[in-house]
Amino acid sequence: MKQKLSGSVVRSDLKLSDGRTISYYDSKEIERSAQDSRGDEAQPGIGHLRLDPLVNEWVSVASHRQHRIFLPPKELCPLCPTTADKKTEIPDSDYEVVVFGNRAPALTTPDANWELPIISGLDTPNADAAGACEVVCYTSDHNTSFAKLSVQQIRTILEAWKDRTKELSKLPYIEQIYPFENRGEEVGVTLSHPHGQIYAYSFLPPRIEKMLDAANAHLKKTGRVLLDDVIAREVKDEKRIIAQNAQWIAYVPFAARYPFEIHLAPKRSIADFTEMDDAQSDLFAPIAKEILARLDGVFGIEMAYIASWYQAPVRSGRDSMRLHWQIVSVRRQPGKLKYLSGSESGMGAFIMDLEPEQSAEQLKAVKL
Amino acid sequence: MKQKLSGSVVRSDLKLSDGRTISYYDSKEIERSAQDSRGDEAQPGIGHLRLDPLVNEWVSVASHRQHRIFLPPKELCPLCPTTADKKTEIPDSDYEVVVFGNRAPALTTPDANWELPIISGLDTPNADAAGACEVVCYTSDHNTSFAKLSVQQIRTILEAWKDRTKELSKLPYIEQIYPFENRGEEVGVTLSHPHGQIYAYSFLPPRIEKMLDAANAHLKKTGRVLLDDVIAREVKDEKRIIAQNAQWIAYVPFAARYPFEIHLAPKRSIADFTEMDDAQSDLFAPIAKEILARLDGVFGIEMAYIASWYQAPVRSGRDSMRLHWQIVSVRRQPGKLKYLSGSESGMGAFIMDLEPEQSAEQLKAVKL
Repeated sequence: MKQKLSGSVVRSDLKLSDGRTISYYDSKEIERSAQDSRGDEAQPGIGHLRLDPLVNEWVSVASHRQHRIFLPPKELCPLCPTTADKKTEIPDSDYEVVVFGNRAPALTTPDANWELPIISGLDTPNADAAGACEVVCYTSDHNTSFAKLSVQQIRTILEAWKDRTKELSKLPYIEQIYPFENRGEEVGVTLSHPHGQIYAYSFLPPRIEKMLDAANAHLKKTGRVLLDDVIAREVKDEKRIIAQNAQWIAYVPFAARYPFEIHLAPKRSIADFTEMDDAQSDLFAPIAKEILARLDGVFGIEMAYIASWYQAPVRSGRDSMRLHWQIVSVRRQPGKLKYLSGSESGMGAFIMDLEPEQSAEQLKAVKL
Repeated sequence: MKQKLSGSVVRSDLKLSDGRTISYYDSKEIERSAQDSRGDEAQPGIGHLRLDPLVNEWVSVASHRQHRIFLPPKELCPLCPTTADKKTEIPDSDYEVVVFGNRAPALTTPDANWELPIISGLDTPNADAAGACEVVCYTSDHNTSFAKLSVQQIRTILEAWKDRTKELSKLPYIEQIYPFENRGEEVGVTLSHPHGQIYAYSFLPPRIEKMLDAANAHLKKTGRVLLDDVIAREVKDEKRIIAQNAQWIAYVPFAARYPFEIHLAPKRSIADFTEMDDAQSDLFAPIAKEILARLDGVFGIEMAYIASWYQAPVRSGRDSMRLHWQIVSVRRQPGKLKYLSGSESGMGAFIMDLEPEQSAEQLKAVKL
């Protein structure tokens, strides 16, 4: 199946041998037909959701992942294109950007009549862990990083994020779509091939619930969109802004929680990827490359980070929540990491050893 | 100043040369008078609190900590007793348990007229980071761990937790008292001397706010205390209970978030340490030793953990929130850690690779 997306990107869908769909996103018309000859069996069973009654939060229990096949050595990277010697997750011998379902997903397609139990403390029954976990391969080149990709390549990735948000939003059991990237061993990455993931949840994740509460309260109180006012404050304060162009603005937020934390938002605010126009899409890649290059430039090393896309839930907060990208790094100084220990992980109360204005200065001072 | 506590424990207060108080907790009457001869200057300035408007959470910014004097090498451990060659944080040449203020605290004593600004999004002014950060040295022996201490020694630590909760509760700006221990390099510990910390917050930390909401909702809906019902379910399910005695019960919770997570609670539930009676106090040490020994026994290595005491806030939830201890370990298998990456840290949505029943089995199977 082939589909034309904006930015001249074309999507071609094929099936892997175990039934998963693989979508190729290409910047030009190209025939994708390589077959997966691995003959794999279907994915392991679905996990389940349990409610933690002490805080009313869902925990996904996916015990089939503990015993999953462990990652092969680097020379057998499963995210590289397939070669004569090596069959990987991507049957074709080359690709631009591909998206496919995780081989051992924590969240998966549920039965047709699936419903999330209403939260009610101890009486809440377990539920199947409905949702989706997808892998987004950013490039076929094993030895690069998102920041170093071409503007065109990042545009193709952006089209994949937009398209997956649109497609996953159609599923009746999906509430939140979360594209993200973990980069670096310090945040547990074992596959160094440049890639991100998309988690689609069948419940509102705890941090989204809090964002929704804050955004709705602000809208009700002021009649204005919270992120618009947040950005207005950053523009007024000015000193924490590290980059901007006609469509996007990047800043270290006033109340940063991590030593190096950058938020990137479109100046014309939108609820989610499905609302992003061509002007915004065209100007994303240059500023994304700039802020990630600044992050890597601070200490002259590839900085470990978690890059998270926040967008409005599929079915709520469409008028109050706004799309933005949060990139957080756990590195405080060369050789020193910020660990989430007692106060952060036990209490959720963050302690920052670096003023946001100081880290903004360091990011701005990087020579590109 | 000397004070008799329960369990025959005696507290003696002295001053360090920079003005901080040091409290010795001893299991017998003993004269504590060693003077701090280091001639140190007063602590660095107070940090401040900034509100993150996207989630309405306070972040403590303590930039004076970034440039704090770095930890001396092991042979100069600042938590060992002072010797002829080496002056440490503890002026005496021996001690049982001591508590003193952190040298570079994230939270400190505010001005007399300090008040937390009412949370109202972007209009909220910064506030001084009021609170307290204390160090609890568990033993003068550098080369041991909490689990290996004697029953008497742990009883003395317990009296220190009780006493500090009582004393800190008297301060008008304190809302939550949080004794905890980070153990192991995997959670960022750089000082291996057995010790814990106490953070006293001038606001309700985010996780406490959620616990309070859940506990209050349950009380309102059922007329019962949430933790009592949680424990009743654990008793009914039985398979996740790993230890108990006449006063305490330890279990892997139904919706554990970490691969090895143990909760320990008194069977007669209490709001906080100030309500703990002698029978509960006497039977804490044996079961604490047992569960920590089981944790270390699973893989035959000293397990890294964060051990958190949850108790009712000082001024709210006194009838709904209940004291308990949560010990979480980030180790999944030998050589494999659970990292808090995208889903956990970006969304607050936990993914568990191990069923709570499986980890309870492993903990129960440890030969002590």
